[in-house]
Amino acid sequence: MNTSTESTTAPAPTHGDPVYGTAGGLVEDNPQQPSGMRVSKYRPFHEQITVDLPDRTWPTKRIEQAPRWCAVDLRDGNQALIEPMDAERKLRMFDLLVKMGYKEIEVGFPSASQTDYDFVRRLIEEDRIPDDVVIQVLTQSRAHLIERTYDSIRGAKQAIVHLYNSTSVLQREVVFRTDQDGIVDIALDGAKLCRKLEETLPETRIYYEYSPESYTGTELEFAVRICNEVLEVFEPAPERKVIINLPATVEMATPNVYADSIEWMCRHLNHRENVIVSLHPHNDRGTAVAAAELGYLAGADRIEGCLFGNGERTGNVDLVTLGMNLFAQGIDPQIDFTVGGGIDAIRRTVEHCNQLPVPERTPYVGDLVFTAFSGSHQDAIKKGFEHMAGQAEAAGVTVDELPWGVPYLPIDPRDVGRSYEAVIRVNSQSGKGGVAYLLKHDHGLDLPRRLQIEFSGAVQRVTDTSGHEVSGDDIWRIFTDEYLPIEEGSAGAVESGLRPWGRLKLEHTRVTSAEGGPATMEVEVVDRGEKQTLTGSGNGPIDAFVDAISHVGVEVSVLDYTEHALSEGGDATAAAYVECQVGDDVLWGVGIDPSITTASLKAIVSAVNRAERAEG
Amino acid sequence: MNTSTESTTAPAPTHGDPVYGTAGGLVEDNPQQPSGMRVSKYRPFHEQITVDLPDRTWPTKRIEQAPRWCAVDLRDGNQALIEPMDAERKLRMFDLLVKMGYKEIEVGFPSASQTDYDFVRRLIEEDRIPDDVVIQVLTQSRAHLIERTYDSIRGAKQAIVHLYNSTSVLQREVVFRTDQDGIVDIALDGAKLCRKLEETLPETRIYYEYSPESYTGTELEFAVRICNEVLEVFEPAPERKVIINLPATVEMATPNVYADSIEWMCRHLNHRENVIVSLHPHNDRGTAVAAAELGYLAGADRIEGCLFGNGERTGNVDLVTLGMNLFAQGIDPQIDFTVGGGIDAIRRTVEHCNQLPVPERTPYVGDLVFTAFSGSHQDAIKKGFEHMAGQAEAAGVTVDELPWGVPYLPIDPRDVGRSYEAVIRVNSQSGKGGVAYLLKHDHGLDLPRRLQIEFSGAVQRVTDTSGHEVSGDDIWRIFTDEYLPIEEGSAGAVESGLRPWGRLKLEHTRVTSAEGGPATMEVEVVDRGEKQTLTGSGNGPIDAFVDAISHVGVEVSVLDYTEHALSEGGDATAAAYVECQVGDDVLWGVGIDPSITTASLKAIVSAVNRAERAEG
Repeated sequence: MNTSTESTTAPAPTHGDPVYGTAGGLVEDNPQQPSGMRVSKYRPFHEQITVDLPDRTWPTKRIEQAPRWCAVDLRDGNQALIEPMDAERKLRMFDLLVKMGYKEIEVGFPSASQTDYDFVRRLIEEDRIPDDVVIQVLTQSRAHLIERTYDSIRGAKQAIVHLYNSTSVLQREVVFRTDQDGIVDIALDGAKLCRKLEETLPETRIYYEYSPESYTGTELEFAVRICNEVLEVFEPAPERKVIINLPATVEMATPNVYADSIEWMCRHLNHRENVIVSLHPHNDRGTAVAAAELGYLAGADRIEGCLFGNGERTGNVDLVTLGMNLFAQGIDPQIDFTVGGGIDAIRRTVEHCNQLPVPERTPYVGDLVFTAFSGSHQDAIKKGFEHMAGQAEAAGVTVDELPWGVPYLPIDPRDVGRSYEAVIRVNSQSGKGGVAYLLKHDHGLDLPRRLQIEFSGAVQRVTDTSGHEVSGDDIWRIFTDEYLPIEEGSAGAVESGLRPWGRLKLEHTRVTSAEGGPATMEVEVVDRGEKQTLTGSGNGPIDAFVDAISHVGVEVSVLDYTEHALSEGGDATAAAYVECQVGDDVLWGVGIDPSITTASLKAIVSAVNRAERAEG
Repeated sequence: MNTSTESTTAPAPTHGDPVYGTAGGLVEDNPQQPSGMRVSKYRPFHEQITVDLPDRTWPTKRIEQAPRWCAVDLRDGNQALIEPMDAERKLRMFDLLVKMGYKEIEVGFPSASQTDYDFVRRLIEEDRIPDDVVIQVLTQSRAHLIERTYDSIRGAKQAIVHLYNSTSVLQREVVFRTDQDGIVDIALDGAKLCRKLEETLPETRIYYEYSPESYTGTELEFAVRICNEVLEVFEPAPERKVIINLPATVEMATPNVYADSIEWMCRHLNHRENVIVSLHPHNDRGTAVAAAELGYLAGADRIEGCLFGNGERTGNVDLVTLGMNLFAQGIDPQIDFTVGGGIDAIRRTVEHCNQLPVPERTPYVGDLVFTAFSGSHQDAIKKGFEHMAGQAEAAGVTVDELPWGVPYLPIDPRDVGRSYEAVIRVNSQSGKGGVAYLLKHDHGLDLPRRLQIEFSGAVQRVTDTSGHEVSGDDIWRIFTDEYLPIEEGSAGAVESGLRPWGRLKLEHTRVTSAEGGPATMEVEVVDRGEKQTLTGSGNGPIDAFVDAISHVGVEVSVLDYTEHALSEGGDATAAAYVECQVGDDVLWGVGIDPSITTASLKAIVSAVNRAERAEG
């Protein structure tokens, strides 16, 4: 960003008369007032770091192909978790990243953590790294850490050694208490040691990445100096390019300033033809995705980030959003966001590994992003689908062969294994809220978000048929019929006119489990009217039950599970909600029972019966 | 973005040999592979809409003051909720927005919803709108909707009537099935009706906003034509400027393209001096904050958005991030993000109103954004704090008078009522996970995120003192001592060497509640060794208990609450966690009991005792 020329923005709001209405107008005078917050402690970015590139070219460029990706979930993502991944979770994450198509994967900081060290050893010793994938290991530029890093990769076919030291004005002053020359020496000493240790691993092809950490707080002249000096040690060559990674360790300015700085660096780095310029944005200002995209326009070749934006503080840049943004422009991200059945399957694995939920409004994957609540949006979407169907029929092609064009849906949800959901609002006219509110208020049920959306569809099917507004009683009747078993002859069943349905009915269960050992279950079910006694085993009652019913041909896997005490009356009745895959269907089941175990098994039965009903 | 000139990006990765290692190198050849995803359905943005502005000036500009803000939480935010706000929640949101300093507040879509209509009437009739605040109401450009909109604002001192119709290529073709002239007619008919109805409300000063909805999918030439024709009807004047709002109804391109389009519009709109150009970004591509910032650089005057980015699908742009981004640059956002005690208080109100959680990594407010896990980050932060303290002492000033400068913390957390947390990782060396894992695995306790962070501090205090690594047993002992009452003479107390502590002890409770009425409670407590019987009432047992203990001078308010069944053993014991404000302290309490009610009361007692101990 230019610090020398223009520095004005849009026409300034003036602060004449702050009181609307009294001065005879509002829109001519902005009545906003000083906040009283402690702004005087902060200096604008341009007073800290000069980025001067009036002849920038990146704003005229366009993205036409995927960058080289590097997934750092197992390092930067992992180190930002309250509960860092154990070996099992690390392996699941690694396997997921490989399956999705990531070819460069930072697998840890082996010199800082024994867990990371052990994990790198395991990947190598168990031969888990495909030939077209290269692992990357991070090390600070300190001798004993570098030595330990080289120990960790012994036996690997190839590896990227990622060397970093901190270069910012602030860290030089506060942490390292040294000048620029001192910081350069730290980098060069480390780089030279790397080259020396390289000789001790003749069977491993070593590549290098160097990061001037806290790059965004570093003067550009110094950043390019230290990178160029390190490059002389690493000797980039056509057959062994060197990665220069320019991290927004802390995001400090608008993303166009980051892009300017990247274009400036690309112009001033030596050996540019053999250097891979890499971006590593964090999201402190909420603009990491933009910083990555504009930085890529500005000449970078490669982007480091994490799935769904995990990472220190506000996270690393979200690799899923970046990839799907390319997809939505017709550019192949070279990453498969449908592995394992769709983007929700990826999300579930990541949630398991990170033990952090993916928020409802996360682009392309959040629970609410393919959902329309407003009538006008629903109407436009409906017309869009109809229009495409008509076009396809007229042209004698399938809908998937047409360019996508449905209002309010930037992509076809089916392309990531999702579906579009029109959500009805029940009783919104009365101001008493909708489906979820009524179930909570009247029955104490706290439905998970995706179940709320699913059930809204069931309500909608009824209202579409009946045409009249539904009451709280109607909703409970629909819910009961959809999810809960109706006992023949029970008062509720008679009143409501509902009849029992469903393939399975749970009778008795007996669970045996030894301390720390597997659970075994004997369960009596009624299967299509016939009593059966089944046995199963697993690491808990749910597992054991799923095993048991597989013996009568019911194949279920449990994808999500929640259970809570019913707050009404203070008794101990529990409500369980499970999201199951039954055959090709993903759907929810609900169970209510005084025993938390029985409630969860009933929920599975509910899902199985619903799947069967949907097919019948 | 320029469609006519350059169209290349960074040097292209080539796809020579996809197998690393075999061809003797990796970094020279990018081995990424086609994903197989259905990219052929999508066309790049520049093939749909031309934005050609090679002489753009926005990249050289800087933001130097806050824009005019408009909060649309009660309209665009509300319509994207599964459970739209009822009147109580709407009022709380409105009051919050007013207190924070928003002067333009879109309060609803009164012609589309009786709830919204009633709410607008209530604001006016109960005289709840301060003189320096103007309400804004949205209406589609259809006669009966416009008429109803004017009905809704009768009696207001002033209001912004926000007229919209959809203008995009896609919506013209699919939804309206008409040409550009037809769409202009819809807008003009509506605008003229507005002017006519204006005369029926002589006591209300009416301002206008016009939105070409789905602007990002509209040809710029057409967008400017329709806006200019509407402006002729609305007659902008210095004393009555007109707002032209340019929504990214769906975010369709990188944010620099949106900025180019805004600069282009600013150059081509008539009456520019009396027009307020407004932005309304959505976050489909995860770049709404960047789009707002770059669009503001490009000449816009005003930004519409929602707190914490609520809104359709992926959300509206996040007003908190935008405001705090200004703050972090030393620019007064003219919004107070500390009302009610700090940004967490704002967040709690918004979570109550929206019934949606604010995610852990949300900039400036998420549970994890002022937290450092990594040792090197913790070390640098510690040195930063020490450096500032030293500087302040040397200069004879307070730390708050110095420019903020602590590594990895973009702002001082205290400026938004938060604190910096260094989180310890227990047993990460062993690969068995940390504090939260051990409590979950060994004791079935599933601690809420903020409690995990708080407890980590307690563990750290012990490890800082003892200096040695802590075991699972140590953690349980620390947890028990910190949160759970120790019974004198109990086996655990003797073994652990812990002694009972705490002001309050819960003995018996009796709760009476009538169906739908308030709960009354008689509770026997031991207060500083003395038995007392207290009574209280409230809308539930927690409320009643808080009331009861206020009679012995204990002032508590419950900020957050969760409870779950303990999964171990399948029994019905419940664990309750409450976040309480006790005096000036915000802290957690924990209670475990077979009764879910007693567990929650014990948790409150735990918090009270902890607060007392912290002071003692």
